[in-house]
Amino acid sequence: MAGIGNATMYRVAGIVGSLRAGSYNRALFRAAVSALPSRLQIVEAPILDVPLFNQDVEDAGDPEAVAGLRQAISGADGVLIFCPEYNAGIPGVLKNALDWASRMHNGQRVLWDKPVGIMGASDGRFGTTRSQMAMRSLLPQLGMRLMPTPAVMIAQVEELVDDDGNLSDEKTRERIREHLEAFHHWIDVFARAERDRES
Amino acid sequence: MAGIGNATMYRVAGIVGSLRAGSYNRALFRAAVSALPSRLQIVEAPILDVPLFNQDVEDAGDPEAVAGLRQAISGADGVLIFCPEYNAGIPGVLKNALDWASRMHNGQRVLWDKPVGIMGASDGRFGTTRSQMAMRSLLPQLGMRLMPTPAVMIAQVEELVDDDGNLSDEKTRERIREHLEAFHHWIDVFARAERDRES
Amino acid sequence: MAGIGNATMYRVAGIVGSLRAGSYNRALFRAAVSALPSRLQIVEAPILDVPLFNQDVEDAGDPEAVAGLRQAISGADGVLIFCPEYNAGIPGVLKNALDWASRMHNGQRVLWDKPVGIMGASDGRFGTTRSQMAMRSLLPQLGMRLMPTPAVMIAQVEELVDDDGNLSDEKTRERIREHLEAFHHWIDVFARAERDRES
Amino acid sequence: MAGIGNATMYRVAGIVGSLRAGSYNRALFRAAVSALPSRLQIVEAPILDVPLFNQDVEDAGDPEAVAGLRQAISGADGVLIFCPEYNAGIPGVLKNALDWASRMHNGQRVLWDKPVGIMGASDGRFGTTRSQMAMRSLLPQLGMRLMPTPAVMIAQVEELVDDDGNLSDEKTRERIREHLEAFHHWIDVFARAERDRES
Repeated sequence: MAGIGNATMYRVAGIVGSLRAGSYNRALFRAAVSALPSRLQIVEAPILDVPLFNQDVEDAGDPEAVAGLRQAISGADGVLIFCPEYNAGIPGVLKNALDWASRMHNGQRVLWDKPVGIMGASDGRFGTTRSQMAMRSLLPQLGMRLMPTPAVMIAQVEELVDDDGNLSDEKTRERIREHLEAFHHWIDVFARAERDRES
Repeated sequence: MAGIGNATMYRVAGIVGSLRAGSYNRALFRAAVSALPSRLQIVEAPILDVPLFNQDVEDAGDPEAVAGLRQAISGADGVLIFCPEYNAGIPGVLKNALDWASRMHNGQRVLWDKPVGIMGASDGRFGTTRSQMAMRSLLPQLGMRLMPTPAVMIAQVEELVDDDGNLSDEKTRERIREHLEAFHHWIDVFARAERDRES
Repeated sequence: MAGIGNATMYRVAGIVGSLRAGSYNRALFRAAVSALPSRLQIVEAPILDVPLFNQDVEDAGDPEAVAGLRQAISGADGVLIFCPEYNAGIPGVLKNALDWASRMHNGQRVLWDKPVGIMGASDGRFGTTRSQMAMRSLLPQLGMRLMPTPAVMIAQVEELVDDDGNLSDEKTRERIREHLEAFHHWIDVFARAERDRES
Repeated sequence: MAGIGNATMYRVAGIVGSLRAGSYNRALFRAAVSALPSRLQIVEAPILDVPLFNQDVEDAGDPEAVAGLRQAISGADGVLIFCPEYNAGIPGVLKNALDWASRMHNGQRVLWDKPVGIMGASDGRFGTTRSQMAMRSLLPQLGMRLMPTPAVMIAQVEELVDDDGNLSDEKTRERIREHLEAFHHWIDVFARAERDRES
């Protein structure tokens, strides 16, 4: 983080929980990037090459993709999860990435105490409401500080993307923007308390 | 709230999620009262006489016990839930009280934006881990700001209470004290940001 | 149960999880009654007067309404739950009734080994998907044999009821009928195995 | 399946939800193999080489390990899941395998209508109670017929394995045996109804 007064700039690590190239939650990530408030930066914490969790592999040393994921999270002031829904729950792919990231490494847990927000998009009428519910139960378990509202649960997203696969729908973009503004405030609340304590 | 500098005093509404007189979670509440940091006050938000939720009853005007619950929460800076586990989940009794308290009333939701912490005690080996998990998924839904850690999940509590039904075990009291200290800090983080914004 | 060959008649206890008179899930119950296959009977297991669970009260002897609930379930071959959604979860009112019914009484648990199905209706777009998910996690905990499909999750139910508050929509009635047919089969599978074992 | 009268033989696909070689849930699987009732066979449905789910990969044709998983399940009369707990929930690794297996393939869903049981072991005091709870909510979503009881949730498993990493504790083996006996009965109930219907 860096900045003066209210204009503190924060960096956010974005985790996109689906691997397919044309993923709706990747479109949601892109929409967040393009709707970003001026005092937020967002970088992707990529999970594409993170292998299936295996403690034997971990014991042999972090795979490169895991080290990258860890570093992206560690260097960020908050985490935004772009959360699909598979079988009414968290995609295995996404839970697997969090299983890696949650592990103690060099005496540190990179997720611990991190502010976190969730957005999600799905076709169908439920808009990831069930995977977000599961996510809400998981994240505090990892020591994360979960922003409770405003929710972004985009249903029937296939009707909201344009021909290029972008979420161009203005109402949706407005909700994303509100979420990001609120998330800046959510990060700021904790960062401010931290600065006060140190000064 | 009232106070000077770091010594800001906060008031907490405690909800005890079990009705029986000898409830272990009531013992936990009493232990919290007796282990309270000097800058916290705690008052019980009683649910004993809160009736089963029924919208017809609500439409006819809040029953007295509901008005009392609402007022106790509304006047507090944070909520602490002493959460039993019934059938691996949140007791119906406790969920029912939250169902009432969550309702819009005179344009306000008393739970919204409130800092909230959870402690729980049970006999058996699980120590309310499952009801606390369900609670973690519920509270952000109500707009509450959930403190993720430290967890207080007291298993086999029947071995930890003394002849008077009090939780006199020193290790347990220490964990409760840590939770309360952390909860003071959790409330303070949001209150401080609020004060900054207003000034 | 009573019957000849495939035409075995089964009795079902219906639990309506909301207390208000105009409840959508009561409308769903009435729709089930009117769409009932000829080999099913359904009687309501009423929860309106079931008090908040309190072990002190239980120790003093079952309240009348609890005895009635227990008896209705005990005398049935299966249980159908008409499940609303409050705050993204099981209504406290309904969980409270199950908390009572789950208790060991005279050496018996009336819910144990009972076939069970779930239907739900709500306004809004989610159609009780989240409370049904919570219910699915709860019922096996109570020893119940949960029919996995077909799901009945009726969203925006306010558009489907007629002026008398009845669910007259034909498509919806068809889904209810399918659920009931499947539930007859679900009960029959276990009853048949029981008869084989005894013979 | 094959057999005469009560002695019908059923085949079970076992899914071990953890990849490390010394996994406690693999030990549990081995214990199940060695405690198997004479009328059950068990074969592992291996997930070690199942890649992270990616619809682009699926569209290009099932990877070999996925085809193998599907085939092992498809050829079985029931599925037993040996379910670890990661971060208070289902391991990403295991959810990922189920995400693959749940997909429609050549007009079929191999998990649909399959009887399923869950066992789990963990160090710590909770014995996978939370991941089993999440699993119970997931499996009916996949159309599976979940055996509700008896639960096998082995806590502090590290104290129950011998020097060779085997679950030699007799009490534990007895609980596993009971689960397997009950699972044979659970499969048989549905298979019997199916045979009746066909005859």
